[in-house]
Amino acid sequence: STLKVALLPADGIGREVIPAARAALEALGSDLPKLEFVDLLAGFELFTRTGTALPEETINALREQDCALFGAVSSPSKRVAGYSSPIVALRKELDLYANIRPVLSVSKDPTQKPYVDLVVVRENTECLYVKQEVSEMGEHGRVAKATRLITERASTRIGKMACEIALQRPRKHVTIIHKSNVLSVTDGLFRETVRRVPSLPEVNGKYDSIQIGEQIVDSAVYRLFREPQIFDVMVAPNLYGDILSDAAAALVGSLGLVPSVNAGDTFVMGEPVHGSAPDIAGKSIANPLASIRSAALMLRHLGYGKQAGRIESAVDEVIRDGTVLTPDLGGNSKTEEVTAEVLKRI
Amino acid sequence: STLKVALLPADGIGREVIPAARAALEALGSDLPKLEFVDLLAGFELFTRTGTALPEETINALREQDCALFGAVSSPSKRVAGYSSPIVALRKELDLYANIRPVLSVSKDPTQKPYVDLVVVRENTECLYVKQEVSEMGEHGRVAKATRLITERASTRIGKMACEIALQRPRKHVTIIHKSNVLSVTDGLFRETVRRVPSLPEVNGKYDSIQIGEQIVDSAVYRLFREPQIFDVMVAPNLYGDILSDAAAALVGSLGLVPSVNAGDTFVMGEPVHGSAPDIAGKSIANPLASIRSAALMLRHLGYGKQAGRIESAVDEVIRDGTVLTPDLGGNSKTEEVTAEVLKRI
Ligand SMILES: CC(C)[C@H](C(=O)O)[C@@H](O)C(=O)O
Ligand SMILES: CC(C)[C@H](C(=O)O)[C@@H](O)C(=O)O
Repeated sequence: STLKVALLPADGIGREVIPAARAALEALGSDLPKLEFVDLLAGFELFTRTGTALPEETINALREQDCALFGAVSSPSKRVAGYSSPIVALRKELDLYANIRPVLSVSKDPTQKPYVDLVVVRENTECLYVKQEVSEMGEHGRVAKATRLITERASTRIGKMACEIALQRPRKHVTIIHKSNVLSVTDGLFRETVRRVPSLPEVNGKYDSIQIGEQIVDSAVYRLFREPQIFDVMVAPNLYGDILSDAAAALVGSLGLVPSVNAGDTFVMGEPVHGSAPDIAGKSIANPLASIRSAALMLRHLGYGKQAGRIESAVDEVIRDGTVLTPDLGGNSKTEEVTAEVLKRI
Repeated sequence: STLKVALLPADGIGREVIPAARAALEALGSDLPKLEFVDLLAGFELFTRTGTALPEETINALREQDCALFGAVSSPSKRVAGYSSPIVALRKELDLYANIRPVLSVSKDPTQKPYVDLVVVRENTECLYVKQEVSEMGEHGRVAKATRLITERASTRIGKMACEIALQRPRKHVTIIHKSNVLSVTDGLFRETVRRVPSLPEVNGKYDSIQIGEQIVDSAVYRLFREPQIFDVMVAPNLYGDILSDAAAALVGSLGLVPSVNAGDTFVMGEPVHGSAPDIAGKSIANPLASIRSAALMLRHLGYGKQAGRIESAVDEVIRDGTVLTPDLGGNSKTEEVTAEVLKRI
């Protein structure tokens, strides 16, 4: 048997960190089925060269794989006609409805502040990300509108995913993030639908041990910074989840540490939470740890929990050891040196 | 001549902190025109008693005043038919299009970390706050949609306000907050319109000394926590501004310190950034400083800069002195004691 892994480095430091993730998978050797990698194209740079950011061939090839690793995509600094983010399109195209972003303090000692051990479970297909936007000239200049979509179906499945993840964690707590004091209809639907998940007949009482709370998004960001330890699993509509996961990443020292998977019912794609970082691209100083951890998270999602654990422990050791780190963590090592250090310990 | 001030304590600790703001204004004595206060009703509690959160009489009476001080409004813990937030309605009704939220570290020493000295200039009338929401039953359950509105007109005037504020600050820097990598039409319009403000013919080169930068909202929240000193004036669409100002407040130690004004061309309403805090309401431990500072900010906006400065210096002294503070700042004094301490120093 084989495990088919698509690699989509895309833009900027994506190209520097995806090879590190690949190397970590390979380092597991006979502990995994035979690995088959395929390199696929996507990204803003591709768009500027070819006029397409996400070729049909990439999507078709992805459907033949078991999983994928995505790097990062650059954002144009001006509006570019015809361009649309390939990562947003991929999430929708492959119905990867859950963006799962665990954020963990480097120190595992809960008395050390700030102690962060939470998972952002971000709905990944709707909210303002449906990108239904229109614009027209009005009496006083241009008028633009975007649609924010929240459905019961998507809210139910992301709610189930959040409960499923909470079930595997000691605290078994889910916080619903919303702004229903303003968006009573859309966020009201999200909030009520997720709240209802544990009592759905089809879940058969499976989530009865889970405690569900809620926070309004602005107050959630405030409390995340003041008392991050109160959060376990945070479940959020797409845009709030986007903002919250960056906020949580800031607390643990660097975006360069935070992994994610984009998960659907039949496919999973690992992706570091950081962006393409054009300012440091090409300098070999990008932190490969978020990307390596994303590979581990992807394995965990595919049922290879033990193998994921081997990668994760190796990363943890390198961080705790503290001598071989990239500049974002105060070190002065290169991407390849940090990667080598992890591989040694896998 | 008189200065007519409406007081709208509304809910929860709003009722405990608005009297403090009033007392601070009164303490200025002959340094201000004769003050005339009028108490007006609004809030969720009012709604539960009378079925209306913002009576017509309140709006009509407000139009007769020079300015107002608003406390805070509670959010229902469940969806309540017919209820809509009175503060959102007031901002729109009185066309208070700019929500100005200065956030400043307690210590004025820029070498102390985190050093924060920024102003969030939040558009206050549109974005998702237009509350145009619809919901219907679809094939797979309920489907809800909200409209996000961004206009050139509102983006221009908030951009001008941001430039006006930046002009009065040493760094003269404006950061546009947006998510145009996803919302290319709506946030694209916001970004391009604000960028264009300094070159508008009617501003006559007035803002030529201002430097304009930009940050994508998720990355802005990340950088706000990692290097808050890079920000001077942040100008943002409504919802991002809401989230960013809570994030910035977390950095300076307490929401209980952060004031705001809702400003239009002909009216200004001071409002602490904190909410109604039902958990501590009625205990006389609410921090009155945000509310007192909001009164000062309101005065500044009305042209009473010197008088505002007297209140602000008194608040700063009380904070630096550190012996009379409410529990949110680690003290054990009551609301009234902190207020008395400020009044003594005005
Ligand atoms: C690049 C951008 C479209 C993307 C998003 O907003 O989802 C990124 O911020 C992320 O968090 O993955
Ligand atoms: C209470 C709520 C409607 C309000 C808002 O979202 O504007 C509050 O969070 C604020 O920041 O003033």
